[in-house]
Amino acid sequence: MGRRFDARLGANENVFGPSPKAIAAMQSAASGAWMYGDPEAHELRGAIAALHGVDPAHVMVGEGIDGLLGLLVRMLVAPGDAVVTSEGAYPTFNFHVAGFGGVLHKVPYLGDYEDPDALIAKAAEVRAKLIYIANPDNPMGTYHKAEVITRMIEAVPAGALLILDEAYIDLAPQDAVPQIDPREARVIRMRTFSKAHGLAGARVGYALGPVSVISAFDRVRNHFGMSRASHIGALAALQDSAWLAHVRAEVATARAEIARIAVGNGLSVVPSATNFVCIDCGRDGDFARRVLASLVAQGVFVRMPFVAPQDRCIRVSCGRPEDLAVLAAALPKALKAVDTGV
Amino acid sequence: MGRRFDARLGANENVFGPSPKAIAAMQSAASGAWMYGDPEAHELRGAIAALHGVDPAHVMVGEGIDGLLGLLVRMLVAPGDAVVTSEGAYPTFNFHVAGFGGVLHKVPYLGDYEDPDALIAKAAEVRAKLIYIANPDNPMGTYHKAEVITRMIEAVPAGALLILDEAYIDLAPQDAVPQIDPREARVIRMRTFSKAHGLAGARVGYALGPVSVISAFDRVRNHFGMSRASHIGALAALQDSAWLAHVRAEVATARAEIARIAVGNGLSVVPSATNFVCIDCGRDGDFARRVLASLVAQGVFVRMPFVAPQDRCIRVSCGRPEDLAVLAAALPKALKAVDTGV
Repeated sequence: MGRRFDARLGANENVFGPSPKAIAAMQSAASGAWMYGDPEAHELRGAIAALHGVDPAHVMVGEGIDGLLGLLVRMLVAPGDAVVTSEGAYPTFNFHVAGFGGVLHKVPYLGDYEDPDALIAKAAEVRAKLIYIANPDNPMGTYHKAEVITRMIEAVPAGALLILDEAYIDLAPQDAVPQIDPREARVIRMRTFSKAHGLAGARVGYALGPVSVISAFDRVRNHFGMSRASHIGALAALQDSAWLAHVRAEVATARAEIARIAVGNGLSVVPSATNFVCIDCGRDGDFARRVLASLVAQGVFVRMPFVAPQDRCIRVSCGRPEDLAVLAAALPKALKAVDTGV
Repeated sequence: MGRRFDARLGANENVFGPSPKAIAAMQSAASGAWMYGDPEAHELRGAIAALHGVDPAHVMVGEGIDGLLGLLVRMLVAPGDAVVTSEGAYPTFNFHVAGFGGVLHKVPYLGDYEDPDALIAKAAEVRAKLIYIANPDNPMGTYHKAEVITRMIEAVPAGALLILDEAYIDLAPQDAVPQIDPREARVIRMRTFSKAHGLAGARVGYALGPVSVISAFDRVRNHFGMSRASHIGALAALQDSAWLAHVRAEVATARAEIARIAVGNGLSVVPSATNFVCIDCGRDGDFARRVLASLVAQGVFVRMPFVAPQDRCIRVSCGRPEDLAVLAAALPKALKAVDTGV
């Protein structure tokens, strides 16, 4: 964008960083960059499978959830096929659906939550091939409890597959995590090392799902698409559960601080199960957009939901104390500037 | 594969490694892995563009040439469309064409060379959308001089695009490198950091082509698909031309040593413009396959061309002296074992 931000709080990156063991592993791997990575990601898939108590045949790794979503859409959506998602949900998924000629059907949020019942009803109505839900949700940060997701899976109409995007699940309360039989054919879960594990730049995501779907990735994926050092870094990150606990604590502290800043400015926040918090600016989208513009002009990179009424909010990624101090200084100025039209 | 090889000479990796500056850059980048890479690869594309004396609008980077080939096929090949390549040429390209429903037409090699005239004639005959040629060629290692490629480009039939895969061009004689006007609409060149730059594990390739084709990648690519550290490593590698010269010298030495080993065993080699050499085993494919099996059984990882008569050869990647010493010890045993049926 031609300038540096004083606080990088817009992309839901994990500023607390990856495990020091992952950093060390990637540093050690640098001199071996002349070797291709294992196209089967044997070690990493094995470790992921062990973590989830499933056979590696239920695990596919890829270039982030984005890459896996693109492949999944390619595999399952022919031109004209119906796909269901929420209005204002993850735009990259929509990009893939449009790119392969699918027809998107969107249902509104219910309050600040994705609406499982509405998604299922719409999927039945339009005979959808894919249904997308994120739990926890981006951009709002809210979550549904495991039993809600479990009921949703049981209600998936015949011929449809539910994509359960759990990018932020490692930062959510334990009651957000459903137990899903790996043979369950109605759902594919997406996980990533980009968020809680702090490896956004390494591009490692994975899918957990039925063997029939997981094995189909092999017919379309770029078998040598992933960085060898990323495999190695992700494996080390996965094995460092103490660092994950540290990140969860830092994120919880930052969420509380963002809430404190919001309340101190007469605003409120949407409860978050992620590493970002939506500050409810209390008026309409136009107002929030002007607050956001002022924050950005002051060097605070933040973003916001795309659609009403969620666009009354500004989405702030969890930062370090020094990042949030920049926000704390900028927010009152932004609110004052917007109120006075300056 | 469940075992380690004593000499890793099968994947055309660059065992001489990446530039120490690229290693250092990737090591420094490891702690910043929490940040997404630049989806526009602004710095890297700028450096590549400067190297080639073109505007960055003529440059697209992606997850290796493999990834870019997949996107290009998706963009330009509809189900049933004709695509032309050589019998025995790069199988990953064929995988992509089949994956998007294209119809492959293959022409034979002429001797140990891809046959530009036959490729062009076939493309005109079948009204091909894409024509694939690698220069230098894999798996044979031979090359055509620049003027042959230039004439080929001029002969591309209307409605077709030539893919000029130059993965190995940095290891070829200078007279292999055509000067191509960046506005030339009939050709897209593919380059990689995987070979001469020793960054196979980093997954960085790039395409040079007309703006209309390059800009179309943005409609289909995984915008955040590339590792941030890979961007940084590739940029450092690009800037270290002294290391590239060192690698070229090491590769030339290894090519000569492989030839010496072959001749010492009563065999010959195909002249190579790459970092691998085809040893001509002097008989048929069945004989060469048995020699290869014996080498592999002795811990020497090598591969071979898929189709006759090129499958009379074994393809050996350029190794360090210690790697080639393993080959030198194993080859006479392999030849003896095959001759005596042991």
